[in-house]
Amino acid sequence: MDLYGKDLITTQDWRKEWLDEVLALAKDMKKHRYEEPYTEILKYKTFFMFFYNPSVRTRQSFEAAATELGGHAQFLEPKAMRLKSKDKAGETIEDAASIMSRYGVGLGIRILEDAVERYGDGEALLREYAKYASIPIVSMAHDKYHPCQGLADLMGLQEHMGDVKGKKIAMMWGYSSMVRSWSSVQEDILLLPRYGMNFTLAYPEGFDLDPGVVETAKKNAEKAGAEFEITQSALQYKDWRFTSELNNLTNKAYFIHPMPVDRGNEVDDEVASGPRSIIYDIGENRLHAQKAIMALTMARGWK
Amino acid sequence: MDLYGKDLITTQDWRKEWLDEVLALAKDMKKHRYEEPYTEILKYKTFFMFFYNPSVRTRQSFEAAATELGGHAQFLEPKAMRLKSKDKAGETIEDAASIMSRYGVGLGIRILEDAVERYGDGEALLREYAKYASIPIVSMAHDKYHPCQGLADLMGLQEHMGDVKGKKIAMMWGYSSMVRSWSSVQEDILLLPRYGMNFTLAYPEGFDLDPGVVETAKKNAEKAGAEFEITQSALQYKDWRFTSELNNLTNKAYFIHPMPVDRGNEVDDEVASGPRSIIYDIGENRLHAQKAIMALTMARGWK
Amino acid sequence: MDLYGKDLITTQDWRKEWLDEVLALAKDMKKHRYEEPYTEILKYKTFFMFFYNPSVRTRQSFEAAATELGGHAQFLEPKAMRLKSKDKAGETIEDAASIMSRYGVGLGIRILEDAVERYGDGEALLREYAKYASIPIVSMAHDKYHPCQGLADLMGLQEHMGDVKGKKIAMMWGYSSMVRSWSSVQEDILLLPRYGMNFTLAYPEGFDLDPGVVETAKKNAEKAGAEFEITQSALQYKDWRFTSELNNLTNKAYFIHPMPVDRGNEVDDEVASGPRSIIYDIGENRLHAQKAIMALTMARGWK
Repeated sequence: MDLYGKDLITTQDWRKEWLDEVLALAKDMKKHRYEEPYTEILKYKTFFMFFYNPSVRTRQSFEAAATELGGHAQFLEPKAMRLKSKDKAGETIEDAASIMSRYGVGLGIRILEDAVERYGDGEALLREYAKYASIPIVSMAHDKYHPCQGLADLMGLQEHMGDVKGKKIAMMWGYSSMVRSWSSVQEDILLLPRYGMNFTLAYPEGFDLDPGVVETAKKNAEKAGAEFEITQSALQYKDWRFTSELNNLTNKAYFIHPMPVDRGNEVDDEVASGPRSIIYDIGENRLHAQKAIMALTMARGWK
Repeated sequence: MDLYGKDLITTQDWRKEWLDEVLALAKDMKKHRYEEPYTEILKYKTFFMFFYNPSVRTRQSFEAAATELGGHAQFLEPKAMRLKSKDKAGETIEDAASIMSRYGVGLGIRILEDAVERYGDGEALLREYAKYASIPIVSMAHDKYHPCQGLADLMGLQEHMGDVKGKKIAMMWGYSSMVRSWSSVQEDILLLPRYGMNFTLAYPEGFDLDPGVVETAKKNAEKAGAEFEITQSALQYKDWRFTSELNNLTNKAYFIHPMPVDRGNEVDDEVASGPRSIIYDIGENRLHAQKAIMALTMARGWK
Repeated sequence: MDLYGKDLITTQDWRKEWLDEVLALAKDMKKHRYEEPYTEILKYKTFFMFFYNPSVRTRQSFEAAATELGGHAQFLEPKAMRLKSKDKAGETIEDAASIMSRYGVGLGIRILEDAVERYGDGEALLREYAKYASIPIVSMAHDKYHPCQGLADLMGLQEHMGDVKGKKIAMMWGYSSMVRSWSSVQEDILLLPRYGMNFTLAYPEGFDLDPGVVETAKKNAEKAGAEFEITQSALQYKDWRFTSELNNLTNKAYFIHPMPVDRGNEVDDEVASGPRSIIYDIGENRLHAQKAIMALTMARGWK
């Protein structure tokens, strides 16, 4: 299996065997952190991180990933890029992507809902970069998907539960005082059912996801012999919080969250810091999953 | 002596033998710059620099320190961090510190008076990070202390004068057209008397330092058999400048300054660029002292 | 020939043999990218990039250059530098340059027309840094010159045409909807005639270049036995665009551009993406030329 040169815009674009290879490598990299040959994979090489939206975890984990692979991540923001837009003369994506392909070995892009005019424009932008770049494009979260979060979630669940086939996951999605992107939820409803998880998605009225993605999620579940269900509980809009009481109704469920967590509003402190919370493990897995993706798509000959 | 894992928020928290070890290592690193084993100490590892306040020297010297130890310093600013504040939902320090502990090996924080509501809040913030992080927290200057400047000052004085015990230091503190933090002065009045220097602190009315710190400084001096004196000269508020005339009254005193220097207002050019000015040596020592601190607290097994 | 320690503010300051050495090394580095000894040249060392003006290509290529030489480029902006200005107290260039000389091995500066009060102030600032720094200063484009673009252009022309002596180059310079600096054009009219190219410079009324630079360009041409001509065609102000029709009048001319290109306004897409466009090759050459400059001026003992 040669993943060299492949873009990763959503896990849905990738075959399950490819994802399995990423997960296996990520787990080995976690065990052998800072060890050869992993520390040599991107030596002297540049990975570009292009942030249309700022980020905490994503920037920290991608930059650390490049460092741990022996390379260097360049931090880019659009304000310095002089890119063409509807109202302003500037450089085309063709030119920007072509030149970055000469300087670096990979390009990560983050562009969420609030940085685009219409839902889907972020996805289209990534695919336009992918068209012109001769190096791999990796989504660092965009308006539609967040493949690295999905893989980190799956990796964390596998670490704590073993094979996830037939296991149940309930995901709540709703109002938050912090801006939230659909990207993580939409990635998870696509990815986790492919691994056979029975998925229940709960959200209040007005928080529907992209119907096309939901449709694909259902097909993924069906194909894997898993269940996929959407539910709208009687909870009011702003009461939509994962409480200790709700948690007690579960059979010792693990708690996951893409972070940052708005404690007290989205979830009770007792849950977020509780013994079954695996949010830090999954946060750490972002690093390992991304290292594995970068190693497999942006370098060759190190295995 | 194992300093691995220790926070450095002020030198006052550290035993004198620990500081001696830092100084000895810093001097050796200065002599053997870019040489093994020093260049391998942080190899493939991430040091986080979190700047609530911007900085010149501090950013340059910490980033170069990480590079020279073989590692990489990530530059972080709060605007991208989505941290919780009184008025805004966001991530808790518990969560931010926990995740950074998974990605990196150390965290430097800079937060001065103008970035906090009340004097002491910066110190409290560092200590809260230290509580939740499993990696060492280093002050890159905060509202109360500046341990790295203190150590660089001491190192420079030792290099030029040998043992500083019984030597006299006079420090002026007063109005400047540039914003000045108490951090450097307060660190020096604590640290230099511990090494036996006779300390005279001079400032105009209205420029009192933290009384608790002054109290501790006096105790430090007493314990080391050194003198500690505060004086308010007859100089007017804005005349508070170190002139060539004042300099001529000294017995060929060395001139030190934490930089940036506001030449012409704070000090005469003849002094700042004069033969007894050691400001560049001390500026350079920031690098070496910080490398030593990072090597001792953030890595293990290289000695 | 020992170029160690030399500033590069314009190629005009350098002897032709020195430039030849840069070009030869750049070509070899292009062939042996990511290979020893090139990857060891700046190992553990800091190169400062100081951007008074933001930039796309320049930042990407200089930062990648440092990475590929084994070192690290620090990204600095004036807002964090607390530098002295006419209206504001701050650090002098003497102090800033002296300290950076202690931390790093080289300093690149970018400062274009819109960041200075009068044309020439940027050039003067670079020369003031050069006066006080003990490490080399490299122009990353300033109001007057852009030596790295000039060398990348020349390198690209040599790669595609062999010896450029006696070859003809026509350069258009005029209105653009993007802000344009004189720096690239002025560097090229100085450099390319030195290598014997017959140079025709075309621009509309009101777009005159620095008369002193034009004078020197003519002398360079004369000395090399080359022609140098300035022409103002009958084209209207905003029609000043390199069209497919114009291109067809040439004898299969190569198309070059310092980028970013304002396609459709400055040049037709058919030309910019056409088979004779070498803009990406030249963009890539920025990297190799800069690596060669850094290796020769900022390091020693690796050859």
